[in-house]
Amino acid sequence: MSTMIRPLAVSLGDPAGIGPEVVGKCWDHRQQFGLMPFVAVGNPRSLAAVWDGPIAVIDDPSEALQAFHDGLPVLAINSSDTDLPGHPSVAGAHCSLDALELAVGLARSGSAAAVVTGPVSKQQLYGIGFSHPGQTEFVAERCGISPGNVAMMLAGPSLRTVPVTTHVPLRRAAEMLTPGLIEMRGRAALRGLQRTFGIADPRLAVAGLNPHAGEGGTLGTEELDCIMPAIDALRAEGWRVTGPHPADTMFHAAARGQYDAALCMYHDQALIPLKALHFEEGVNITLGLPIVRTAPDHGTAFDIAGQDRADPRAMAAAINMAGDCARNRAA
Amino acid sequence: MSTMIRPLAVSLGDPAGIGPEVVGKCWDHRQQFGLMPFVAVGNPRSLAAVWDGPIAVIDDPSEALQAFHDGLPVLAINSSDTDLPGHPSVAGAHCSLDALELAVGLARSGSAAAVVTGPVSKQQLYGIGFSHPGQTEFVAERCGISPGNVAMMLAGPSLRTVPVTTHVPLRRAAEMLTPGLIEMRGRAALRGLQRTFGIADPRLAVAGLNPHAGEGGTLGTEELDCIMPAIDALRAEGWRVTGPHPADTMFHAAARGQYDAALCMYHDQALIPLKALHFEEGVNITLGLPIVRTAPDHGTAFDIAGQDRADPRAMAAAINMAGDCARNRAA
Repeated sequence: MSTMIRPLAVSLGDPAGIGPEVVGKCWDHRQQFGLMPFVAVGNPRSLAAVWDGPIAVIDDPSEALQAFHDGLPVLAINSSDTDLPGHPSVAGAHCSLDALELAVGLARSGSAAAVVTGPVSKQQLYGIGFSHPGQTEFVAERCGISPGNVAMMLAGPSLRTVPVTTHVPLRRAAEMLTPGLIEMRGRAALRGLQRTFGIADPRLAVAGLNPHAGEGGTLGTEELDCIMPAIDALRAEGWRVTGPHPADTMFHAAARGQYDAALCMYHDQALIPLKALHFEEGVNITLGLPIVRTAPDHGTAFDIAGQDRADPRAMAAAINMAGDCARNRAA
Repeated sequence: MSTMIRPLAVSLGDPAGIGPEVVGKCWDHRQQFGLMPFVAVGNPRSLAAVWDGPIAVIDDPSEALQAFHDGLPVLAINSSDTDLPGHPSVAGAHCSLDALELAVGLARSGSAAAVVTGPVSKQQLYGIGFSHPGQTEFVAERCGISPGNVAMMLAGPSLRTVPVTTHVPLRRAAEMLTPGLIEMRGRAALRGLQRTFGIADPRLAVAGLNPHAGEGGTLGTEELDCIMPAIDALRAEGWRVTGPHPADTMFHAAARGQYDAALCMYHDQALIPLKALHFEEGVNITLGLPIVRTAPDHGTAFDIAGQDRADPRAMAAAINMAGDCARNRAA
């Protein structure tokens, strides 16, 4: 089955968050954003509560392509309660998890070309017994991949970053760095650039941990002890890898032109430049999976849900990137 | 004596670095950059070696204003050797230190409105017995101020950042944070915004250390233990202080509009966004001194010295900011 005739599956995320609104707005502006057909997965009532566009509830994802021209196709997850925007509930958390499960299943089975996941509330999910740190680990597990073998990439129009460590205290991040971990994330990034972004001979720039990348050991030793050995190991496999670079001089325009992705040592090292440069259109993409999975790089934003204030550009960017990556993989 | 009739003193930095070239280029483009008159302090031969503009060696800074129209006024530091661009020497290191000392003295005595320091090589200075970590601490000491009471601000057209810790390993930076240190740097930043930038009621945004600013203690405790107490203490003095903010969402355009300076916990947290956004025009300004001191936020760049490749925009920005800040102080 060709990629071109399968829709993307877009889970709506928490029904009380901004997910339904931004997905509805993406359908409104589907031509302006240049979006390929997609099917929303979630509770149609959560869409109708915040968006007055036409909804086409369908029974099978194969109906999505035809339905997409006249309305937003929805594969319905029926939730017992009606959720109020901005007021998360247990029922809404169950709904968001069911939608995620179904959307991932569609991508795994080949009924959808890729999956785009709307924002969920981790606190709400933990409250109903969700045992994964986040959606990324859940998707990895459903795909039969160890979370340790996937990598999170943050991507904007002029920058892609991959953090080696993510949601841990900064001191713990420094302690967690090993040559093996850096090498594994670097390899996941490089393979992802090849397989998912279609870059035949990708260039990876590796950041240092310390100021001035440790300045030869005088400002920290992780560069010598952990980062250089990982770079050497990747180079020995034939990959084009540079670094460790001083992190503060890696992210201006001329520097960004020298690599296809930056491997960063901790969360904010990857996220500060990405969001400084591309706040409205940052996309989170999980590398190392058998399927393509993207997400907008924002949360549920319960505080503005239902007020018609949510910006759909990040969701549109996530949908577009999912489509592009699915095509790259099929090519 | 009015600020308007005193020149700025600009030390050339290491004669083998790009300092002389960018200062010469600033004189070339003095009208385009809108620069007020300045006097270079250094070895005229290091200027002539890399720049073919007119040099006016003067004996007293008061001659600078008249001389500036026809050539670049220079207060000469005579060095025994002729330095080759890109080849630092012991004589050059002595020359750069003598120039710094004289330029700072001119600002302290009131003969210059402010001092702008060209890039020096710390390694070269250490080699001749220089016992300060960098120029900032030297200038503080010459002004009779403890280095602990000054703060380094990095400033570009749309962002000012002040790091609480600077050139230390990242792990050490996390260990060094105390409520007292954060409060002191925050106060130096706020007073500097008032006194040197002329902002009557400045707004300071304080970054968290950990991802998501610690997310209520689950991703690190420094926010609760160190940063919040410092914010509370500053607020109790009447300052407008917000935070701790997740660092990754502080630096996009809309967020930057909410504060006059961002107080950052470590070197790269302050430098990554500043250089991502304003690489060619970042200025380093020392707050807490009796004089105004700025510097371009780049190094000696020995590797490109003497090749006519150095970009003068950061030096021009440093000269302009020194002039603006001197006027603010005099107002």
